[in-house]
Order: sequence, then C-alpha cells, then structure tokens
Amino acid sequence: MGGDPFAFLISQHERILSDLIAFASIPSVSADPAHRSDVEVAARWIAGHLATAGPFAVQILPSPGNPVVFAEWSGAPGAPSVLVYGHYDVQPPDPLDKWLSDPFRAVERSGRLHGRGVSDDKGPLLNPIAAARAVFATNSRLPVNVKFILEGEEEIGSPNLEAFIAENSALLAADFVISADGAMWRSSEPSLTIACRGLAALEIRVVGPRKDLHSGSCGGAVMNTLHAMAHLVDSLHTSDGRVAVEGFYDDVLDVPPAERAEISALPFDEPAYREELGVSELFGEPGFSTLERQWIRPTLDVNGMWGGYEGPGSKTVLPAEAGAKITCRLVPDQIPEDIIDKVVRHLLARPPHGVSIEVLPETHAARPYRIPSDHIGLRVAGSALEQVSGRKPIVVRNGGTIPVCEVFKRVMGMETVFFSFSTSDEDFHAPNEFIRISSLHDGLEAWVRYWKELAVVMR
Amino acid sequence: MGGDPFAFLISQHERILSDLIAFASIPSVSADPAHRSDVEVAARWIAGHLATAGPFAVQILPSPGNPVVFAEWSGAPGAPSVLVYGHYDVQPPDPLDKWLSDPFRAVERSGRLHGRGVSDDKGPLLNPIAAARAVFATNSRLPVNVKFILEGEEEIGSPNLEAFIAENSALLAADFVISADGAMWRSSEPSLTIACRGLAALEIRVVGPRKDLHSGSCGGAVMNTLHAMAHLVDSLHTSDGRVAVEGFYDDVLDVPPAERAEISALPFDEPAYREELGVSELFGEPGFSTLERQWIRPTLDVNGMWGGYEGPGSKTVLPAEAGAKITCRLVPDQIPEDIIDKVVRHLLARPPHGVSIEVLPETHAARPYRIPSDHIGLRVAGSALEQVSGRKPIVVRNGGTIPVCEVFKRVMGMETVFFSFSTSDEDFHAPNEFIRISSLHDGLEAWVRYWKELAVVMR
Repeated sequence: MGGDPFAFLISQHERILSDLIAFASIPSVSADPAHRSDVEVAARWIAGHLATAGPFAVQILPSPGNPVVFAEWSGAPGAPSVLVYGHYDVQPPDPLDKWLSDPFRAVERSGRLHGRGVSDDKGPLLNPIAAARAVFATNSRLPVNVKFILEGEEEIGSPNLEAFIAENSALLAADFVISADGAMWRSSEPSLTIACRGLAALEIRVVGPRKDLHSGSCGGAVMNTLHAMAHLVDSLHTSDGRVAVEGFYDDVLDVPPAERAEISALPFDEPAYREELGVSELFGEPGFSTLERQWIRPTLDVNGMWGGYEGPGSKTVLPAEAGAKITCRLVPDQIPEDIIDKVVRHLLARPPHGVSIEVLPETHAARPYRIPSDHIGLRVAGSALEQVSGRKPIVVRNGGTIPVCEVFKRVMGMETVFFSFSTSDEDFHAPNEFIRISSLHDGLEAWVRYWKELAVVMR
Repeated sequence: MGGDPFAFLISQHERILSDLIAFASIPSVSADPAHRSDVEVAARWIAGHLATAGPFAVQILPSPGNPVVFAEWSGAPGAPSVLVYGHYDVQPPDPLDKWLSDPFRAVERSGRLHGRGVSDDKGPLLNPIAAARAVFATNSRLPVNVKFILEGEEEIGSPNLEAFIAENSALLAADFVISADGAMWRSSEPSLTIACRGLAALEIRVVGPRKDLHSGSCGGAVMNTLHAMAHLVDSLHTSDGRVAVEGFYDDVLDVPPAERAEISALPFDEPAYREELGVSELFGEPGFSTLERQWIRPTLDVNGMWGGYEGPGSKTVLPAEAGAKITCRLVPDQIPEDIIDKVVRHLLARPPHGVSIEVLPETHAARPYRIPSDHIGLRVAGSALEQVSGRKPIVVRNGGTIPVCEVFKRVMGMETVFFSFSTSDEDFHAPNEFIRISSLHDGLEAWVRYWKELAVVMR
C-alpha cells in the first residue's frame, strides 16, 4: 500500500534545511540562565513541529529544570516500539569572536550549514521527525510504534532526566531507545557507536586575600592564588600523562584483548588526525593508542581556568580568587560521585599556604554506557546504514557523554542504539559548528529504512 | 612679606576635595586603548589646573604615547630648584562588580574619598599644585624654583618616559626630583621611603589545537593547553616559595646586616597584617621576613591566567589557547631585560607535548631605585613631615615600582625623594581605592613646609 516515501523524502530536502535554520535561530543555551526563556521557546517550537509531522500525541512535560517534549504514535499494535531520544538545548556559543558568522543565524557554506546546535543536536533530531512526516504522507502509518523524548538539559548533564524517566516509565516504555544524539565517527564511512564515556564535573576556587592586592606592595609575602591554582591543577596529572589522583583508575574494567585488537584494526591515520587538530604531537596516557585514550580510558581535563587581569596591557594584582572547571570522562565501572570524591580528596590533601580551596556543588554527572554487541536494534541500524551508504559500517565508540543511555538502561532496562547523522568533526562545542547537508539527507532515508526493517525482523 | 599660607591652606580644604572629585571622574586608564581619549582629557584638565594655580609656564608635550604635562616657575634665581613628578593616568577599574560605588564618581564615606586614582596618583598630585596656589596667593612667589612633570603612562610602566627625559633634559634640569607618587607605609605614622623595586613583565600563551576541541571526543589524546599552562606556571616557583628560574637571584645585592636590622626593628604587627589581608598564613621566600620579602627581595607573580570557559555552568572544551600575564619585582642590581630572558629561557626549556609556548612583546620594564640615605632632599622631607605630624618619620621602602626615579638618576643624575600623601593600604590597583581626606590636608601643609625649609638649608 501507499506511495514511495523515498521519492517524497527527496522533495523534503529544502524543507528540512529551512526547518533547521529556523530551529537553530533559537539560542536555547541551557548552561546560561539568561537563555532560560529561549530554551522554553525551543521546546515549544519542536513540540509544534512534531505535531505537524503526523498524528502524534504531543505533550510538553514540566521538569524541575527545562521541559521535556514527548510525542507518541501507537498505531501499529503488535509491531515493535521505539523511543527516539534527542535534545533541543545547545552549548554556549563562546568564544563569540571566533565565529565567522552569527552562531544563531545558520548559513550554508560549501555544502555545510554553520550555526550553534545544527550538528548537536538540532539537525540530527529533525531527521526522524522529517522521516516520520514522509512515511505518514505516503503510507498514512509508520511500520513501528514511535515515541519521542526530547530534553532541554543535555548540555548541562541532564540533571533532571533520571527522575523524569523514573516517574514516567510507563509513558516512555518501548523495546529500546534510538538516540538521534551521538555522531558518526567520521564522514568517510558509516559507523555504529557501541559505547560512550561517563562524566564527572566539579568547579573549584582558590580563595585568598579578602581583596585583590597590589603585587608590588604585597608580592612575595602572600601566596598568589594563581600560583596555588597552577600547583593544584598541575598535581592532577603525572608528567607522562596519567591522572595522578589516588584510586582514579581503580574501577576501570580491563577491555578484552579482542576488543583492543578491533580498535587497532580500524582505519585511523594518526598523522592526518594530528594535522586536522593542528598539534605537533598527540599526547596522553602511556600504554594506550590515541583511539583507546579517547574511547576506553578515563580522563581528567580542565575546561576553564581563570583569575586576575585578562584585559589589554597589564594590571599588577595578586588576585583574591582563582577558579577552575574540571570534568572527567569515565569508563565502566567508574562512578561519577566516587571519582569526584577522589579528586576533591586529592585537592584538599594539598592545602596551599594561607589560602583555601573551595569546591562548588556540581550536579553534572553521568555514568558510562555500552550496548551489547549483538543487540537487535544495533544490528538493524547497521543494516539500514549499509543500505543507504552501500558500505558495511565500522564499529566505534564515542569519547563523549550521552548521559541518558545509561539511565534508560539502569532505570527501565532499555538499551540505546546511537543513530545520529552528525559527524564527530563538526565542531559541536566549538566555534563554527556545522553539519554536512548531505548527512542530513542520508539520515532521512536511513531512519525510514531502519523502522521498515525493524518491523520485519522483530515481528 | 606676605600673608600666611597655612591659614590660606585651611580655606582650600573644600576646594582640593572638589578638584580631586572632578579630576578622578576622568577615566584615564592608560592600559586600555579604549580610554585613550580620556587620557588626553585628563592631561588637558591637569594642565589647565596648573595654569590657574600660579604664574606657571604650562606645556602639553607630545610623546609617542600619552602626552607629558610640563610646568615651570623660575622666579627664584639663586634658590634651589626642584622637579615635581606625578602621573595623571590610573589603573583599570576591573573587577567592576567589586566596587561599592562607581569608580569614576568619587564619593566620600567615613573620611575617605573612594574612586579609581584618588590615591594613585591624582590626589597626591593635586597636593603640590594646591600648595603652590596657596603660597602664590599669600606671597606672590615660591621660596624655590618649581617644575612639574606629570606623565600619563605610569600604570603601563612609563614606556616612553625615558626617551622623553633624555630628549628634554635641559627643560627638566633641577637639583633633584620630588615624587608625588609613592605612598606612606601606613596611616599610623609618617614614613620616608628610600627605595622601590623594579619591574619586568611578560605575557605568555600556550597555543594548542587550531580550535577548541570537545573534551569528550578528544580528551585524553591531546595536551590540554590549561594543563600545560598550569605546569609552566607551577614550575616558576619551588614549593617553599623561592623563584625557581635559573639565575633569577644572581644579581641580587646583599643588603647589609645593619639595614636588615633596621627593617626588623620597625613596628610591624604580623598577625594584624595577616588579619588585614584576610589570609591565614603569610608565605614567601624562606630566610626572609615579610617586610624583607616585600622590600629587599625580588618576586615573580602571575597577575592573570586564563583559558577555556569561565561562564555559568559548564562547557566541555579543550581550549585552543591559554594565557598568563607575569610580572617580576626587581631589586638592585637586577636588570629587567636580563630577568625576562631568564624567565623565557626557563619556559622554553619546558616545551609541553604537542603545543607551543609564545612570548608576547612587552615593554613594561623598570629598574629598581634607591636614594642615598644622606641626601639633603630626603633630610628636609623628613623635617617637613616631622613639623606636620609632630613625629619623627620612620625609614621604609616601597615594594612597588615607580619607574621614573631610576631613569632620572641614570639619565640626568638626579635623585628622587618620595613625598606622597597616599597610604599603602588605600587599595590602589584594587576595587574601592580610596584616599584619607586628612592625609590630603596634611600633604598641603607638608609641601609648603618642604619648599620653605629647602630654600633655607640649600641657600
């Protein structure tokens, strides 16, 4: 029955691009309270967008933080059901002066659409909605039951999502989750992501004199908070690149030799990667390859550090305070709270002379996740990718963090298949974020094929 | 002949306060190019002010940077001549959010006038002008010949003043210099400052990947520029507080035991000082007291350090670049250029893996200065202070830097007497800078007595 959704999809190409440009014009920066109302606007925009794509029951559900957009179509009794996950919030656009165009007025340059959030996650998230629109338009029904859960706090670590999932598990129940967040490893070949790292975050302050001091009058006689901060930060790693925090690696599971062999067999051109990043040397934990360092080993990184005068010229102060933001990426079986405890203990064991260390409360935490390699949703995803690209996808991992997948597993027993059509080089979290427009189009077709094949193999 | 200048001075108290409020409302921040025109306005304001104080020949002389205001009255042939030094530029007001009132709308609170520059150096600099006005008004002439040199680049290290002095030495010639910049050591007793430290400044960057990277995708496999910066900064000191740069102390002259004994005999309440600063412990180079660390020992301090995300919430980046501003305070016979070379060599000898160190050109440099203890200008200054306060001034040093005094000495052979009525606790270079209004009034009388006695003892 019905028309050809793939022909219809071609006719959608212009529309998905203009929809994405509109969606990306909303600065839904969840990290910045100043953008709170923009986040609400984005939630309403995507809810309205879902409602026009087909006969979905759409709800905007409150949370203690940003709302969750939920949609459901259950018109295929007996067919499998999937829960599509995505997020409508975006990273802050800083540093603004590095953008070649306005981060919130997405523009196309050479086959790429540039704008904050186009790749993470607004573009990939529009894919399944446009796919559903095409199938509804041509067949009046979807081959599987589809629910959507679109959150607005992914970029701040989904602090309220776990409680939301626990409270709404009946509403959310499905055979498994398909995440529109995540990314293809690279643009040259399709890939299936089987794991992501967890996250533990903390923010610290070194608090010194009650006010900034003149570095002439007082310099040399009082601990400089910046020197103390540098000492603390430097103490977190050994000079050869290991994390120096006691017990940091205690709970890291050994990855089986066979899996390490698979990673080392992947086509990875290290000199080209170095060139792409613009560094003269890659550097990290001894005993592991670059891909292993990114995928199967935990890290500790300072993401921001500040204190004193940063403006033009000079200002000779001993700053009253210095600050740093730290995140760790975690692998099985590390627990965020335990890692934070260990880092805090490490810092407090090194009290600088005469100044104090303060640790700010931080709820940004997520456990690592790994889907079983033989999961049916993963297998069908691979098949859909192969149909679209004509190539067998390679199996990779994601060094980043998608907090929700481990939560779906722990709270509801649902596994998550990553099925995103962004690519990891698209500068999400950096200036000039972009998405390849061709990937968006591939994604449309892949989602349709995924649902179609799933209905067959799971029947 | 003539009237009583001291009675006249009393009548000037309101006027000097309103003049200072007007002068301090001009945001003449030399460090910030955005304030360039304000610096010009301040130069014209003070030139106009000098012209109204008496029959001075006033000139605004160009320099490659900010103009120099020069004034001269030579109506006392045979009498000694002095060159009064001061500066009309001010420090940046950052951090603005720490000010209790607008930094550029000076307001009185509890006998103190609060505003950027009121203590450093606009208030002290108005003192000799108001003193001259009083003496001219009551006696038609000054007892000594007086010249003024008021510069606009002190807060950025007087980069153009040395060449200016060399080119204008005939114009500037005098028996010695009296500096209206500097500060009393404390408010509880008068003091004579006999030395100040020099300054060497540099700014560094750690330059890593060509753009900010996602700390999930890339974390663990690339040197984090903030880790590299922390390591470099931490390497600059030993854990016990010495500067770890090779050769840093090579040219430091030993201070004679008698002078160290004088310093240790000064009334200095270390617990009270700790309390005043708000630190639980003082800290610095082993083997030296707090006052020695501030006055006769060199230092290296980071005045600003930054990189990555500093905003609310978190942004998981590996920043492409990190920066730091560093200054050293120098003592005889350290040379700024030599110290910079040594610090740069130290840094470049520690190349971080895969990222590079850049050193930015920096002209902020000054040599240390010391006036001979038996200089007649110093002796008369002490006498004037004693007449005003009824107490014999104590002999102290200044941990800060007044670049011009060493230049006057080296280029023109003139010594400099520090004769300022600010106090070192008045938060210059910090939020809520203030000057004690009573100090301003004491200063008026002291300048008149200084010139008067100088005419007698040097005749």
